[in-house]
Order: sequence, then structure tokens, then C-alpha cells
Amino acid sequence: MSEMQLYTFFRSGTAHRVRISLNLKGLQAEHIPVNLAVDAQLEPAYAEVNPQKLVPTLNVGDHRLIQSPAILEWLDETYPEPALLPRDTWARARVRALAAMVGCDVHPINNRRILQYLRKQFGADEAAVNAWCGRWIADGFDAYEALLAEDEHRGGFSFGGAPSMADLYLIPQVESARRFQVDLTRWPLISEVEQRCMALPAFADAAPMRQPDAPK
Amino acid sequence: MSEMQLYTFFRSGTAHRVRISLNLKGLQAEHIPVNLAVDAQLEPAYAEVNPQKLVPTLNVGDHRLIQSPAILEWLDETYPEPALLPRDTWARARVRALAAMVGCDVHPINNRRILQYLRKQFGADEAAVNAWCGRWIADGFDAYEALLAEDEHRGGFSFGGAPSMADLYLIPQVESARRFQVDLTRWPLISEVEQRCMALPAFADAAPMRQPDAPK
Repeated sequence: MSEMQLYTFFRSGTAHRVRISLNLKGLQAEHIPVNLAVDAQLEPAYAEVNPQKLVPTLNVGDHRLIQSPAILEWLDETYPEPALLPRDTWARARVRALAAMVGCDVHPINNRRILQYLRKQFGADEAAVNAWCGRWIADGFDAYEALLAEDEHRGGFSFGGAPSMADLYLIPQVESARRFQVDLTRWPLISEVEQRCMALPAFADAAPMRQPDAPK
Repeated sequence: MSEMQLYTFFRSGTAHRVRISLNLKGLQAEHIPVNLAVDAQLEPAYAEVNPQKLVPTLNVGDHRLIQSPAILEWLDETYPEPALLPRDTWARARVRALAAMVGCDVHPINNRRILQYLRKQFGADEAAVNAWCGRWIADGFDAYEALLAEDEHRGGFSFGGAPSMADLYLIPQVESARRFQVDLTRWPLISEVEQRCMALPAFADAAPMRQPDAPK
């Protein structure tokens, strides 16, 4: 195994996904914190690491991997056990759809740079920011919950009876929903999945407040 | 091959991606227009088709596929020629990163439902909407252009010398950028890729104004 370094921020949902995946696969990566709270990702030194100036970045030997969806697929292709995508192509499409519902249509819209723009350009106060985040989380979680409900073969996780790539997206988003004061009781199946995941050390150890760069 | 139906809207960037992929792979799908301009995607009949109430949906026989990233991966797994992802895992990660830069960090933020929210809740006028879209497009395209520039082995496309999954994301986003009056001369490599793609019938035929549901 090549040496890995993960550029991460404790509260970044996208870095959080990668931390869970590394833990599930039993991989070690040196964590290099990038403090988004002071816009450290915009400094020239980090722009050389990641031209998009976002976390996460995963360096693997001489290779630089960016964009969490690409990193998660790479990890699953390169370290296939435990598999985070099923083998059946229909099932893979289902897991990837759940992942994309969060990864495309919820998370990026509530990202820090977007909320900063809302505050600066549209004068949004914290109530308006929470309403904004709550709207996209609710839209996404309503659909996610509907997909969970219609899946007759589902075990306790988003797909089947073990963690899949979908859970890597869902759990950080649930964490973020709580921070934006979204009432999660509306989505009982999502809440069950969260409980099931958080009982596993791979998920618990990846949580924002368990990271070395989190406030004490 | 099972019969396919694609729920599409001529101007939807996500449906546009799927149209290009189907064309490249020589697949036929019946097009079922969903008129987003009158919010037809919110009607109960469509919510039964797609619980997320977004386009595209690809029905394949009895199977329903949603979320364009999942659909595009499924198409590439199921109809491998021409391959839209390279074989090498590092190269796959690169193509998927380019795709995700557009698919996560540009397109969803400029989606119709987001712009409607900006107009209604924050009183954004068309200039403010164009500035919003322009900001996220510029951020994304700056990084995309930087990745193209650093790739010494690149041919005329986003990766290598043939269309890849990255181009399926890029071309609809360029189309959208033009609609939001973004000056594309800032990104000469992206513009070259667009020219190269649009010379191919698979891309030209998938363009919004070539669709039957486009205004005459």
C-alpha cells in the first residue's frame, strides 16, 4: 500500500465520506487539516495541492485524487473489501442514485462557499441560512426516505444489510442536518440507518467531533 | 436490448448528459418530455415515476433508473462500447473528478429550483441570477481548465483523444453557461473541447434546441 495523506477538515461532509470509507477498508491515511473556518483552502499553498480549492484531497504516493465521488469509486476499485458497491448492475445504479441524491442535490447547495455568498450578496441572516439548508435537505431526504421505503429487500442500511457507498453520503448529511437544526423525526428510516451506521467504529471514528482538528 | 424510455426536458443539463451517452453508444430510447417550464415534474403522475421529482428518469424494461451520475455509470457498465471511462484506475479517478466538478459543484447550484428560490425568497432579479450562476460556473471552469492544462497526455477532449464521461458533463454545462451570458473566452481549452465534441453527431444531436420538445 502506498502512503496516503488526506487533506481534511473536521466538519467537511465530503472529507467525512472519505474518512468513513478509509476506516471501513482498514486503510490508514495521514490527516492534514485544512481549516475552512479561516479559508485556508484558498491559500496558494493549498491551491497547488487542489486546483479546485476544496477538500478533500487524497494523495496516494505521487498521485493526487480530488472530488470525493471519484475518490470513493477509486477506493472501492482499488481496495475491494469490503465492497461498497454491489455486484449487480441494477443494484449498483440504485446505490449510486442514493449517493448522488445527497452528493449532487443536497450537499453542494449547502456548502460553506454558497452560504457565504447568501450572507454577503443577499444579506441572509442565520434564520434564512437555516431555512435554505433545511429546504434542500428536506427535498433530498424526502426522496431518499421514499427510496428506502420502497425497497423490500433492504436490511438496516441504505442498501441491503451492510454499509454501502450510499451510507457514506447519508451519514455526513444527517450530521449536517442536525447542525442546521433540521428535525430528523420526519424520516424514521433514515434515522434507523444512522443508528445502525453509528454503532460501527468505522462510522463513529470518522465523526466530525472525533477528529483531531475539531474544537475541544 | 430492453426497451428504454427517457423522461427528459430539452434544456435540462442532466437529461442532456444521458442523451449524449445514449447517442454515443448507439442506443435508442423513446423520449417522454417533462415540461419543467410549467413544473410538470411536480405533478403526482411524475412523482410516481421519480420520487425526487427531477429529470432524467430512464426506464429500462421494468427497471427505473434515476440520477444521471448513476444512469451514466450503468450505461457504461451495461453497454461498454465505446467505453466512457478508461480502464486504468488512476485515469478513471481523473475522469470522474472532472465529471464531479461539474456534476456536484456547478450544475446543481444553478438548477431551476434553486434559482426559483433565489427569486422568491431573496428577491433576486435576472442580473443577480446571472451573477450567481456565473460565479459557480467560473469557479468550476477555472478548476476544470487547470486540470486540462496540466494533463500532458490529453488529446482534444477532456481526457485523452476521445469522448469520456467528463465530456458528458462539460458540454451541457457550457451550453448552460452561454444561456447565463458567461463569457467563455476565459477558458480556451474548454472551448476547444466543446468544438471537438460538437463536431460529433452524438453530441450535436443531443443539443437542447435539437430536441422535439424545444420551442420552434
